[in-house]
Amino acid sequence: MHFNYQHLHQVLSKTYQSKRVNHWLSTGLLILIFLNILAIILESVSSIEIQYSHLFKKFEIFSVVIFSIEYLARLWACAGLTQYKHSTSAFKSRLRYLVTPMAIVDLLAILPFYLSFFFALDLRFLRILRLVRIFKLTRYSAAMKTLTSVLRDEIPALLAAYFIMVIVIILASSGIYLLEQKIQPNEFGSIPASMWWAVTTLTTVGYGDVTPLTNGGKLFGGLITLIGIAMVALPTGIIASGFGNSFRKKRQSYGLEVAEALADGVITNHEQEKLNDIRSSLGISTDDAQQIYKEAIFQHLQAKQVCCPNCGSLPKEA
Amino acid sequence: MHFNYQHLHQVLSKTYQSKRVNHWLSTGLLILIFLNILAIILESVSSIEIQYSHLFKKFEIFSVVIFSIEYLARLWACAGLTQYKHSTSAFKSRLRYLVTPMAIVDLLAILPFYLSFFFALDLRFLRILRLVRIFKLTRYSAAMKTLTSVLRDEIPALLAAYFIMVIVIILASSGIYLLEQKIQPNEFGSIPASMWWAVTTLTTVGYGDVTPLTNGGKLFGGLITLIGIAMVALPTGIIASGFGNSFRKKRQSYGLEVAEALADGVITNHEQEKLNDIRSSLGISTDDAQQIYKEAIFQHLQAKQVCCPNCGSLPKEA
Amino acid sequence: MHFNYQHLHQVLSKTYQSKRVNHWLSTGLLILIFLNILAIILESVSSIEIQYSHLFKKFEIFSVVIFSIEYLARLWACAGLTQYKHSTSAFKSRLRYLVTPMAIVDLLAILPFYLSFFFALDLRFLRILRLVRIFKLTRYSAAMKTLTSVLRDEIPALLAAYFIMVIVIILASSGIYLLEQKIQPNEFGSIPASMWWAVTTLTTVGYGDVTPLTNGGKLFGGLITLIGIAMVALPTGIIASGFGNSFRKKRQSYGLEVAEALADGVITNHEQEKLNDIRSSLGISTDDAQQIYKEAIFQHLQAKQVCCPNCGSLPKEA
Amino acid sequence: MHFNYQHLHQVLSKTYQSKRVNHWLSTGLLILIFLNILAIILESVSSIEIQYSHLFKKFEIFSVVIFSIEYLARLWACAGLTQYKHSTSAFKSRLRYLVTPMAIVDLLAILPFYLSFFFALDLRFLRILRLVRIFKLTRYSAAMKTLTSVLRDEIPALLAAYFIMVIVIILASSGIYLLEQKIQPNEFGSIPASMWWAVTTLTTVGYGDVTPLTNGGKLFGGLITLIGIAMVALPTGIIASGFGNSFRKKRQSYGLEVAEALADGVITNHEQEKLNDIRSSLGISTDDAQQIYKEAIFQHLQAKQVCCPNCGSLPKEA
Repeated sequence: MHFNYQHLHQVLSKTYQSKRVNHWLSTGLLILIFLNILAIILESVSSIEIQYSHLFKKFEIFSVVIFSIEYLARLWACAGLTQYKHSTSAFKSRLRYLVTPMAIVDLLAILPFYLSFFFALDLRFLRILRLVRIFKLTRYSAAMKTLTSVLRDEIPALLAAYFIMVIVIILASSGIYLLEQKIQPNEFGSIPASMWWAVTTLTTVGYGDVTPLTNGGKLFGGLITLIGIAMVALPTGIIASGFGNSFRKKRQSYGLEVAEALADGVITNHEQEKLNDIRSSLGISTDDAQQIYKEAIFQHLQAKQVCCPNCGSLPKEA
Repeated sequence: MHFNYQHLHQVLSKTYQSKRVNHWLSTGLLILIFLNILAIILESVSSIEIQYSHLFKKFEIFSVVIFSIEYLARLWACAGLTQYKHSTSAFKSRLRYLVTPMAIVDLLAILPFYLSFFFALDLRFLRILRLVRIFKLTRYSAAMKTLTSVLRDEIPALLAAYFIMVIVIILASSGIYLLEQKIQPNEFGSIPASMWWAVTTLTTVGYGDVTPLTNGGKLFGGLITLIGIAMVALPTGIIASGFGNSFRKKRQSYGLEVAEALADGVITNHEQEKLNDIRSSLGISTDDAQQIYKEAIFQHLQAKQVCCPNCGSLPKEA
Repeated sequence: MHFNYQHLHQVLSKTYQSKRVNHWLSTGLLILIFLNILAIILESVSSIEIQYSHLFKKFEIFSVVIFSIEYLARLWACAGLTQYKHSTSAFKSRLRYLVTPMAIVDLLAILPFYLSFFFALDLRFLRILRLVRIFKLTRYSAAMKTLTSVLRDEIPALLAAYFIMVIVIILASSGIYLLEQKIQPNEFGSIPASMWWAVTTLTTVGYGDVTPLTNGGKLFGGLITLIGIAMVALPTGIIASGFGNSFRKKRQSYGLEVAEALADGVITNHEQEKLNDIRSSLGISTDDAQQIYKEAIFQHLQAKQVCCPNCGSLPKEA
Repeated sequence: MHFNYQHLHQVLSKTYQSKRVNHWLSTGLLILIFLNILAIILESVSSIEIQYSHLFKKFEIFSVVIFSIEYLARLWACAGLTQYKHSTSAFKSRLRYLVTPMAIVDLLAILPFYLSFFFALDLRFLRILRLVRIFKLTRYSAAMKTLTSVLRDEIPALLAAYFIMVIVIILASSGIYLLEQKIQPNEFGSIPASMWWAVTTLTTVGYGDVTPLTNGGKLFGGLITLIGIAMVALPTGIIASGFGNSFRKKRQSYGLEVAEALADGVITNHEQEKLNDIRSSLGISTDDAQQIYKEAIFQHLQAKQVCCPNCGSLPKEA
């Protein structure tokens, strides 16, 4: 068999014909990413770093080699991507792949290593920069896709909520600055300084390292605190509503498919298989699917029963 | 072309025929507001204030001049507002405009500057008062309109939630006052003094600057803390439900429009355009619109199909 | 006109024919309750208490006199209550009224005053006990009724949530007791002592007066903290869902009424008035009502149009 | 009467014919579990432990004897379980019962006691281990079943939310480690050390025992805090949506049953009883049931009315 970039692409995107190859490759990369994150965290502990610095260095080189190969392989294979199939040339589709978010993440995951040969960079900062590898995980987590899609739908509302929050933070820090500035010139000496208190209070974190001391400040602070819980409620409300809507849309979407399959009176084996595929792709539980099906059947029967007051005969199966 | 107050009004409300004029004017004012807020924040930092006090003064005068012109322009142009068109005179409609919330905000944004010539006001307080200019932003933010409309719908429920909260705060501070007063006469010496602890605890901020020390106080405090999370839940629940309802209403509203357009069996180009306008004004995504359309089509077909399975004739248009 | 207990009852329940009498009486009592709460709060401040103790005493006597008259008036008038109308005697219905929650609150609001003549009670505790008068407010607040009805519907779910919370608090305090007991024998010396930390952490209050110091304790504490946000989420989720359901039920309920009124094809003036009453009693905004009406009309028309495939004639108005 | 393991099983699962036997047995066991938890908590208080150590020991032996009898009884009786009825032998069904979660909890509740005879275990740890008995409660709490079923449905979404949270915690602690490490080498000396701050901040607990001191750290900390409230919003949103969906599904499920019972035009006494059973098993209030019923009736009537306005004949039963 001739192994070309389309096969490679199928392997990398877990659609290759050999399921075992797909599985081992993605599992291997996943483990490597996790080990990398663990290594970065452990390396920051001085005692561990001193003792195993040699090991960490070797592991880093090994990881960069693997990630570099992965990056080049994906770049070469991307010409097999369906969305790039109609590009005039493989080169053009590769150029277009280069600027996708995942390709940039893959590049940033290895770039610092290579740059450190040419530039003198702060070692500690360089190490932390490797944490960008954490974003490589998004490629593998199916569960996160629902979450991120809900968050994406709610971005305009969330931005508006954060905008209101910024306004309230500015007003709160200006007010407390006026009231506490004389008593606590270090903590509330300017509006930017007072913002630390405003943010930690309005988000209900409340460290307590800076608190109002005057009666006026406490009264103002208490009011701000009460407003704070409404502000924390805004993103929660937006996200809760987003999840609810996402679920409802999925159910309706599946319900329509069932109703369409039922339109001719029977659900064939083929239709059943198709419905199952849709169900699992939408992430609807079998319990829910059962209820949606029951409802569709009932409505179908009612529609039929309702409609032959004169003719008295059952509607023919279309 | 004769440029009258109706043209000016169109420019100010971004409905003027020249889109470029609309765009530059609103962008310019927006930037000026942002710069003003930034200036107020920076001016509160002593080191910056001392070094650039001259610059800040000039910028303030420039801003007040622009905002004054804007205020007068809006006042003069408001006679062009459709809701004031049937007023007997331009003067009367201007009087009515003067007391609208946005006109008051515009006035408050410039008034302190003029008042400072006549009265000796505390300079620091005067500066902070300028922050009222932040509310001028609401005129430009489209995203905040959805948010504020949801909040407005839920105001009665939110007020009731805050009323319950005030009652619980009074009861909590009275209880802790009884229990902790002897041990901590400074912190819990009276009910008003104890309220500081009650508010920061019930909102789950928990600074920790004042905490119960007796066993009785800790037991009572623990119970109050547990009640606190239900109280934080109230506004969150109200707002979450508000967002959910707002979304549902929009979908139903659009669904009705689609169904009406479908009533005659086809959606004409003209109807399609109208639907698109409604969709974007309601802020429904194209994905959602697609699903709503699919549903409406299905119901339309079912309604038709339901009634003539055997007779084969289409229902007559009523 | 003979003024009997039925008239008195009408006055007290704000259904008397003279609206002005109703209004002044309820407003007067409302103000008196608010002044009482304010007095209790201010009296706890030593400096104020010393200066105005005579005034506070007079106001207390005045309040108790009024509240006593109110209590006796309600007790005498309750025979006029519709739900007690079928009682065999006025005496029996009064006995039954005596044990209603509102009657008990009314009694508790005055009882401490009378008891203080017979028993030597701690003065400070006695004063705080008067705060029970705060619950007299529930009789007047219409907005709180929706809120409390939602909360009542969700009581079983909320209790279950608090039950889970208690279990997690016990497990968390036991775990931290094992891990921190040796280092901090005062703060974590026993499970009950550790509960203070567990409660303030799991509710995300986080005073910071007691925190784990060992690495094990911090790891365990971190995990407990992460679990804490899910526990705070439980009551919020329950209440959010409760508000959503309450709103949906109201809409459906009103929708049914509109559909029934529409069944005969027209909405008469009388039906319109009835619908308006239902709408305002359900607390549905006119905007929402408009949309519900539009939907009902559409469904009504569709049902009609759909149904005459054979007869070809419009359905007769029933 | 011959009393075999099927009777015993009925007693243990509260389905025995004598309701009094069922009631006393389950109440007795419930009280014993509560007393056990109370004993474990009190025993951790040194003063109480020293004084009553003898009593605690006796109570422990008594509890273990009862729980051991319960364990053996359930094991013997499990052959009466319907789901095991088709097992080839009672022995096999008992083996399968042994590995169910509840059986493991029952075993863990008594095992430490027996193990302490053979192994020298830390007494304090051993005592806390007994807290596993708290999970025996789940068998008796009906209210917790709804809650746990909602949580189970949302496990994939919640896991995804916690996964995002872990990523944000790693990024936050890495960032603060870079910024604060030099100033506070003890608190922010490594990424794992910084995680304590990150977790307490992102969950809005905010102890305040560790806070950023540099301007950069405060700026970064403020941003992290603002992100924190969105992260707390995720599980809340997921759970709120879960409760809403659970309620909706229950209503729809009941609505379908009502509609089916109504299909023949009348609800017989037998159908009414069945509906009542379904209603209470779904935990729908009578108020809600009433509304669902009203809706179903209306739709039924409309469906009928719709089709024969002129012809006057009832649709034939299909």
